[in-house]
Amino acid sequence: MSKEKLKIANKLKLKKYRDELKLFVAEGLRLCEMAADSEIEFGFYTAEFLKDERAKNLVEKISAPLYEIPTANFEKISDTKTPQGILLAVRQKFFSIEEVFSQKLIVALDAVHDAGNLGTILRTAEAFSCGVVILEDSADVFNSKVVRSSMGAIFFLPTIKMTRAEFLAAVKKFDVEILATALDSTAEIYYKHDFTKKSAIVFGSEAAGVSTEILNAAKKIYIPMTGRAESLNVATAAAIVIAEAVK
Amino acid sequence: MSKEKLKIANKLKLKKYRDELKLFVAEGLRLCEMAADSEIEFGFYTAEFLKDERAKNLVEKISAPLYEIPTANFEKISDTKTPQGILLAVRQKFFSIEEVFSQKLIVALDAVHDAGNLGTILRTAEAFSCGVVILEDSADVFNSKVVRSSMGAIFFLPTIKMTRAEFLAAVKKFDVEILATALDSTAEIYYKHDFTKKSAIVFGSEAAGVSTEILNAAKKIYIPMTGRAESLNVATAAAIVIAEAVK
Repeated sequence: MSKEKLKIANKLKLKKYRDELKLFVAEGLRLCEMAADSEIEFGFYTAEFLKDERAKNLVEKISAPLYEIPTANFEKISDTKTPQGILLAVRQKFFSIEEVFSQKLIVALDAVHDAGNLGTILRTAEAFSCGVVILEDSADVFNSKVVRSSMGAIFFLPTIKMTRAEFLAAVKKFDVEILATALDSTAEIYYKHDFTKKSAIVFGSEAAGVSTEILNAAKKIYIPMTGRAESLNVATAAAIVIAEAVK
Repeated sequence: MSKEKLKIANKLKLKKYRDELKLFVAEGLRLCEMAADSEIEFGFYTAEFLKDERAKNLVEKISAPLYEIPTANFEKISDTKTPQGILLAVRQKFFSIEEVFSQKLIVALDAVHDAGNLGTILRTAEAFSCGVVILEDSADVFNSKVVRSSMGAIFFLPTIKMTRAEFLAAVKKFDVEILATALDSTAEIYYKHDFTKKSAIVFGSEAAGVSTEILNAAKKIYIPMTGRAESLNVATAAAIVIAEAVK
């Protein structure tokens, strides 16, 4: 019944219910097209949305129950200012440690709070075929802003949530070198590092950087800057180091 | 008189008035600290803000007229959800073509609409001592979201606005090679390009890429990707190419 599903869609704005139901929301034509190969539970669209040919094809392609609802109702469940009129509830996909650590490069996010930055890093990680570890205190990868700024990367990207202790155990088990960006005198310039050995690169919060627990176990690298800025945006720093590592 | 200044501060939310008055707004402790060496016209703070020692030092350091106003009034002129209680009206600084083109690397933004992306690119450009050219149809560099995400880079960065025609004339005059990111078969992998010759790297809008006018005059480079993503965030792509160019 669509009324009950509407309630669920609304609840999925909150992490608590996303965790409980193991679902998350994808909105908009492009994102929902990318979600089409994922496990979709149900969805909503407006009559207005269906007027577009590409939109119609998408709705026909999806076998899960989709409900046409009035624009006013759609606006209530939507998390965007100008909703496109399509919303899917997608099952969260979980990857094993083995799947994540079998990627040539692992990107670990240590308390990256900003949803936009987190999503952008996921998008970059997917573009370069990395595995991603989400450590404690990071934003929820299934938050709608993360999903949007990941540009659908979240549907394919081998991602796993871990505690710092679990992560440190895993890098040992899989014989992976931990690298962390840091501004200290023992750090090496990032492009001088030999990336032929399998590495996990850790990025921390903009305010506090990588946690001491991880830093103590990591080789420190830094990005030399010449301007007056003291730091880069974390998604920027991640892009620069990841692109160098996969070269 | 503070009432009139309040009106001006409010007006500066609109590009029209920023252009007319050649002023823009910086908000928050850190951003205003960075603005302290710029030409400040006037500003506002709340009694609450002054309770912090660092905030007090900042207010004492600024010689321009600053007005203490009630929090309710401050919230009206503020452009942020949770205002910190300090706002400065700063004079827009203009750089000459010579100042911008004397930088070792020039970054040109061709219709980059998204304020967050534009600000992030400015932050990256400043960190690596680039000059920046803002081409037509880009977001306003003095938009408050651009200023915030530039993390103050806008106060120091040699930036100039140009039409595409003016830009093409300038690169000729200063003997600079134009590079543009593009996905076509004639493009070269970005890290294979010889960046020892002075270059201007152009980044376009997320939707449309670099304009044909610029592309026709540019050497095309691309960032090889291995995932299912078709593209990178424009600020991500800019970071990767800029970091490679200045290495």
